[in-house]
Amino acid sequence: MPLMPSTPASPSTPSLPGRCPTRITALAGGIGGARFLRGLRAYLDRLAPSLDGPVELTIVGNTGDDIWLHGLRVSPDLDTLLYTLGGGVHEGQGWGRADETFAVQTELLAYGSGPDWFGLGDRDFATHIMRSRLLAQGDTLSQVTARLADRWGLPEQHIRLLPMTDQPVETHVIVPESAFPDAEQADSAATDGERAIHFQEWWVRHQAALPASRFVVAGLDRASAAPGVLDAIRGADLVVLPPSNPVVSIGIILLVPGVREALRGTSAPVVGISPIVAGRPVRGHADACLDAIGVETSAAAVAGLYADFLDGWLVADSDDDAVDTLRRTQPDLVVEAHPLLMSGPDATEAIAAAAVDLGVRLAERRRDAGPGSATA
Amino acid sequence: MPLMPSTPASPSTPSLPGRCPTRITALAGGIGGARFLRGLRAYLDRLAPSLDGPVELTIVGNTGDDIWLHGLRVSPDLDTLLYTLGGGVHEGQGWGRADETFAVQTELLAYGSGPDWFGLGDRDFATHIMRSRLLAQGDTLSQVTARLADRWGLPEQHIRLLPMTDQPVETHVIVPESAFPDAEQADSAATDGERAIHFQEWWVRHQAALPASRFVVAGLDRASAAPGVLDAIRGADLVVLPPSNPVVSIGIILLVPGVREALRGTSAPVVGISPIVAGRPVRGHADACLDAIGVETSAAAVAGLYADFLDGWLVADSDDDAVDTLRRTQPDLVVEAHPLLMSGPDATEAIAAAAVDLGVRLAERRRDAGPGSATA
Repeated sequence: MPLMPSTPASPSTPSLPGRCPTRITALAGGIGGARFLRGLRAYLDRLAPSLDGPVELTIVGNTGDDIWLHGLRVSPDLDTLLYTLGGGVHEGQGWGRADETFAVQTELLAYGSGPDWFGLGDRDFATHIMRSRLLAQGDTLSQVTARLADRWGLPEQHIRLLPMTDQPVETHVIVPESAFPDAEQADSAATDGERAIHFQEWWVRHQAALPASRFVVAGLDRASAAPGVLDAIRGADLVVLPPSNPVVSIGIILLVPGVREALRGTSAPVVGISPIVAGRPVRGHADACLDAIGVETSAAAVAGLYADFLDGWLVADSDDDAVDTLRRTQPDLVVEAHPLLMSGPDATEAIAAAAVDLGVRLAERRRDAGPGSATA
Repeated sequence: MPLMPSTPASPSTPSLPGRCPTRITALAGGIGGARFLRGLRAYLDRLAPSLDGPVELTIVGNTGDDIWLHGLRVSPDLDTLLYTLGGGVHEGQGWGRADETFAVQTELLAYGSGPDWFGLGDRDFATHIMRSRLLAQGDTLSQVTARLADRWGLPEQHIRLLPMTDQPVETHVIVPESAFPDAEQADSAATDGERAIHFQEWWVRHQAALPASRFVVAGLDRASAAPGVLDAIRGADLVVLPPSNPVVSIGIILLVPGVREALRGTSAPVVGISPIVAGRPVRGHADACLDAIGVETSAAAVAGLYADFLDGWLVADSDDDAVDTLRRTQPDLVVEAHPLLMSGPDATEAIAAAAVDLGVRLAERRRDAGPGSATA
C-alpha cells in the first residue's frame, strides 16, 4: 500500500545511517541518468562517515545507442556516464568532453568521411580510438569499459560501469518512407513503404522529428546480458531507475535477455524516478519515443511500462495527479511526489536521497511483511 | 661513357621544351623524396607552357615504414608525400601537418595507450582514421591512397601516388640484445642475443643510435608490387630516384618482387640524386643504415647499390671525387656534380631540372645508339 508523500531527505542531513543499502544497482541511459547517478554518488559519499563501509554502485549502461562512426566504435551512453562520473563532461551540453577542439572531424570531413551531423571532438575521439583498438584486439566491451573506467577513476569512487551486453546491439527506428523529403524517398515497392535508420540518425540528425512507427534493436537476437549484469540486479539491496528515457534507454536494457526477469525476481526494491515532469520530458525526445510505442507522455504511463517489477516511483510534485492515477492502476506501487528538476548538484542529490529513502522504507516494509511477500 | 659535368639547367630558363619526358616515375621515401618531388613538379609546371601536354608524374612510395599505432594504420612516407605535395605539411619538421594540435594523443596517453615516442597530431590522426576505416572496409592500400590523394589535389597536379605494395610490409631492425640498457635486456638464450624492433622504434624512438646488424622486412614474402607500379617503371620516359634513404626507403622498394627487374628492363633512363652530401646524409640517419649493411657512407658507394640499373647519378659538387671513383668502378654510369642542398624552392627546382636534363641527354644518347643498346 502506497505511503503518503514524505518530506524528502535533505542531502545535508542524511536520514539513513545504518539503514543505507550497501549495494545499489542502476540501469541508465546518457545525460539524465549520468547526472542523477553523479548526484546519487555524491549523496552516498556524504553518508559515508556514518556508514560501516562504502556503498558499491553498479551501473548497467544502455548500448543500443552505439554506432560505428569513421570506422570507430562509439558508445554514447557509456561515454556520457564515464565523462560525467569522471569529471570530464561538457557540463553545458551534458555529453562529450569539456574544452573540446574539432581538428580531427574537420579533417575527416575534408576527406569526405561523414556523417557531418554527429559532432565528435578531438578528446572524445581518443576514447573511441581506444575502445576500437581494444575491441579489435579481442577484448569484450565489458573489458574495454572497465579499462576506460580506470582512467576516469570510477573504481576509486566505488562505481562499476557495465555495458548491458557485450554483443554489438544497435537500436534502429522505423520511419515511414513518406516522412522523408521527396528527393530522398526510396522506391516504396522495394521498402514496403518504411525505412529503418540508426537511432542516432533519428535522434541527432533529425532531432526525433521524423515520425517513428516502432523501434527495432538489431543484434538483440544474438545478445546476452554482459557478465555481472544479472547478478548485480539479483544481488542488489536497491535497484534504481534514474530519469532516463523509458523507451530507448531503459526500455532497451529491459529487452536484453534475462534483465526483466532479474528485476522481477530480485529481492531488492526497485525504485524509479519519472523522466516526465509536468507532462513533458525534462530533456530529449522521450515524448516522441513514447508516441512511437503508443504510450502517453505522463509520469503515470511511464510507471506502467515498468509495472511488472517496479516497487517505488518518484513523480514530480507538479505531477501529483499521477499519485491518484497510479493508486487506481498500480495499487501495489508506492508513489511519492518530489521536486524532480535536476537544476543543480543540491537538487540532484535531494532527488537521489529521496529515491534511497523510499528504497529503504520499501525494504523495511518487506522485512516486516516477511520473506514470503518479497516479490508479491 | 660518362659526360663531363654540365652547367645545371636553371629553373627560370628551362632548356628542355620539346624534349621533356612526358611520363616520369619516381621511387620515394619520406621527407627528402617529398621535397625533391615537389621541386620536380614545380619545375615541370614551369615548363608546361612550352610543352604539348602535362608531364605525368608517378610516385612509388615506400611502405616499409608503415606501422599500427593505437590500432590505426599509419603510413609515414605516403603521408609525408601527400602532405608535402598537397600543401599541408609542417615545413619546419618536414613531416606531419602544419598547425597541429595534440589533444587526441594526450588523451590516449591518459588512457595508457602508447607509444609516447611517436608524435601524432590531431589533423594527422584524421588521415590514419580514414585510412584504417577504408582498409577495414576492404579497400586496398592503393585504393585508399588514391582517395587520400584526391583530397590533397594530386590528380589535378598530374601526380599519381602508388604504394609500393598493397600487402602490409614492415621493416624491422635487428639489434644486438646487448645494445639495450641492462634492465631492458631479454634472456639472451631465448633470443639468440638479438632482437627485432620495428623500424619506427629504431628510427624515431632510438634515433638510429642502437647498432643495427641488419634489416628484415616482415611480410615481404607475401608481397607483390601494387597495381601500376611495374608498368609505371617499364612505361616511363624517365625514372628518377630522389635523394631518399638508399637502405630503408628506396632499398625497401627495390626488394618488392619485380621492381628491381623492371628497373633493369625499362627503356627509360634511370637517374638518381645522391642523398649523401659531403660524405654525410643531408638529413636523417642514412649513415647508420649504410653501416648496418656494410656500405660506406659516400655518394659513390650509394651509386654502387643501384649499379645494375642506374644510368645517371647526380652527386654534390662537394663530392666531385665520386665522379672519378665511379668512372673507375661503374664506367657506364654518367655522373655529374651539382649543388644538391635543397635549401629552398629554387635550389630544389634546380636539382630537379638537372636530373631531368641528364635524363633527356641519356635518352637521346640511347636513341642515337639504337634500340639494341638500350639496356646495355
